[in-house]
Amino acid sequence: MPRPDEFGLIARYFAPLTENDPGAFDLTDDAALIRHDNRQDLVVSTDCVVSGVHFTDDDGPDAIARKLLRVNLSDLAAMGARPVSYVLALALPRQVDEAWLAGFSGGLAADQKTYGIHLVGGDTTATGGPLVATITIFGEVPPGKMLRRNGAKVGDDLYVSGTIGDAALGLAMKLGKLKGLAAQQPDFLLKRLRYPEPRIELGQRLREFATSGLDVSDGLIQDAGHIADYSHVAITLELDTFPQSVEAQACVENDAGWLREMVTGGDDYELLFTAPVAAAGMIASLSRELWTPITRIGHCRAGRGVTVLGKQGQPVLFERQGFRHF
Amino acid sequence: MPRPDEFGLIARYFAPLTENDPGAFDLTDDAALIRHDNRQDLVVSTDCVVSGVHFTDDDGPDAIARKLLRVNLSDLAAMGARPVSYVLALALPRQVDEAWLAGFSGGLAADQKTYGIHLVGGDTTATGGPLVATITIFGEVPPGKMLRRNGAKVGDDLYVSGTIGDAALGLAMKLGKLKGLAAQQPDFLLKRLRYPEPRIELGQRLREFATSGLDVSDGLIQDAGHIADYSHVAITLELDTFPQSVEAQACVENDAGWLREMVTGGDDYELLFTAPVAAAGMIASLSRELWTPITRIGHCRAGRGVTVLGKQGQPVLFERQGFRHF
Repeated sequence: MPRPDEFGLIARYFAPLTENDPGAFDLTDDAALIRHDNRQDLVVSTDCVVSGVHFTDDDGPDAIARKLLRVNLSDLAAMGARPVSYVLALALPRQVDEAWLAGFSGGLAADQKTYGIHLVGGDTTATGGPLVATITIFGEVPPGKMLRRNGAKVGDDLYVSGTIGDAALGLAMKLGKLKGLAAQQPDFLLKRLRYPEPRIELGQRLREFATSGLDVSDGLIQDAGHIADYSHVAITLELDTFPQSVEAQACVENDAGWLREMVTGGDDYELLFTAPVAAAGMIASLSRELWTPITRIGHCRAGRGVTVLGKQGQPVLFERQGFRHF
Repeated sequence: MPRPDEFGLIARYFAPLTENDPGAFDLTDDAALIRHDNRQDLVVSTDCVVSGVHFTDDDGPDAIARKLLRVNLSDLAAMGARPVSYVLALALPRQVDEAWLAGFSGGLAADQKTYGIHLVGGDTTATGGPLVATITIFGEVPPGKMLRRNGAKVGDDLYVSGTIGDAALGLAMKLGKLKGLAAQQPDFLLKRLRYPEPRIELGQRLREFATSGLDVSDGLIQDAGHIADYSHVAITLELDTFPQSVEAQACVENDAGWLREMVTGGDDYELLFTAPVAAAGMIASLSRELWTPITRIGHCRAGRGVTVLGKQGQPVLFERQGFRHF
């Protein structure tokens, strides 16, 4: 399919994503206005994904677009922020055609509806290398109420939403490493890898009582380490309490070695947070209200670092605690 | 030189660029706060540069960093905005070492001082391809006062700041296409390519009287076409009035064919704007006050498109009007 020129492509595939926000000027100007409630704090986050590192071409443009947006939304969730708008910068290889752009912008359009967000600006350029896509996302949070990584207190419990390790297993499956899996729903694990669910509503509710929080992107143990480091506490994780999907349990029963991948592999985009022991009842109610599993997986003590305890309470060591970006 | 880990590199080279803005949280969190005067409109722009497309490795990390920041600052200038802060996303090839990161962050640090701006957040990741760097920049403008592309009126004059074509010649020189140049200062043209000067102060002053404006990034003729298109006017450009540097004049005297490159090559990052005829005196004063050449190069009439007139008033045709990104 022949491609129209740059300005035609922007008008056709990206301008509709502004959903008529007058501040976006139909993507025809040098910059845009961020229109938001200026009685709220404005939060910003940026995330960049690269073909061959964060996804492969066979993930398809719809999944690539939606994961990029969701990864950014997850950063807002981690701060307890409400999504407002975003800008998109694309470095596109020559072989990207209109069908690809239609799939990519279609994926964004679908998720914009789901998460109540829209595009306000962007940049497109060519690259001689792999596709690189960067979203910078904006959100609102009541003044001074942003959830951070540095507020965990000795005695706090540590919780995580959803289930952990599905995406890591999905990646292993995609790479052909996860074999002999007579799993009921192999698609489930791939879906968890490709379509993480940012915990937007949960993040905003956590502002009421959580003392610290972040989203698990680089591996549960490494990310727990960030809370420990910045909050100046030690964290004990109890491995046998980790929430696992039925599909992940089937993998672990088959080969217990997968557990290691699951807690260090990352890409979960679940919320990991600390809260006082007294908040346990509220957290249980919230879990029911939002239809979102929330599981206590550890606690904070005086000291530093992360200790993982196995089924019999013995410490378990991990050579690699999580994903390093470079 | 061995590289420390991701978090060590961020702490060493990028956290200092936040200049202790408490909203940046030393780059240790999932997101940052954009702290700005909330009685002003908040403007956002994003620009992405790719090795092999916008620069080559021999430009060096200092120039790459500064050009990326300046190109973004130029977008703010074009809107009449005051720079506030920015976020940076980097996709880094494996061969990028600490010396490179030191040069890159050093370039940003130098220009942060010059332009009164600082870093508030970012993302770093690996890539198997060329380096890609994306800046999303924030600026402030008094409510409703943003300078746009769509306000030119029939009868307005068209002006441009500085000189046009130096960067296009600098690129030709870099590519070894500009030969036999016994120019006084060959470095001047390369410098104009590598270190564009965003017209920040001028852009803010233009809000007083300009009816439309943008920064010349993709070629003077093509960018003039954007004003014509979005303002629904025709623009006549008078080629012999175009402001040229002494160095560019020397090239044109040598080979008149270079003129074509100069007006279609782009990368000027000068401001192109329209203003009523009555503003001529104010513009002359402003030019003196800011020590910035501002030259009348054409005017707006009823109709559409851009007509370029040569020395004898004959229309000059250009096959290619400017740079297309993809």
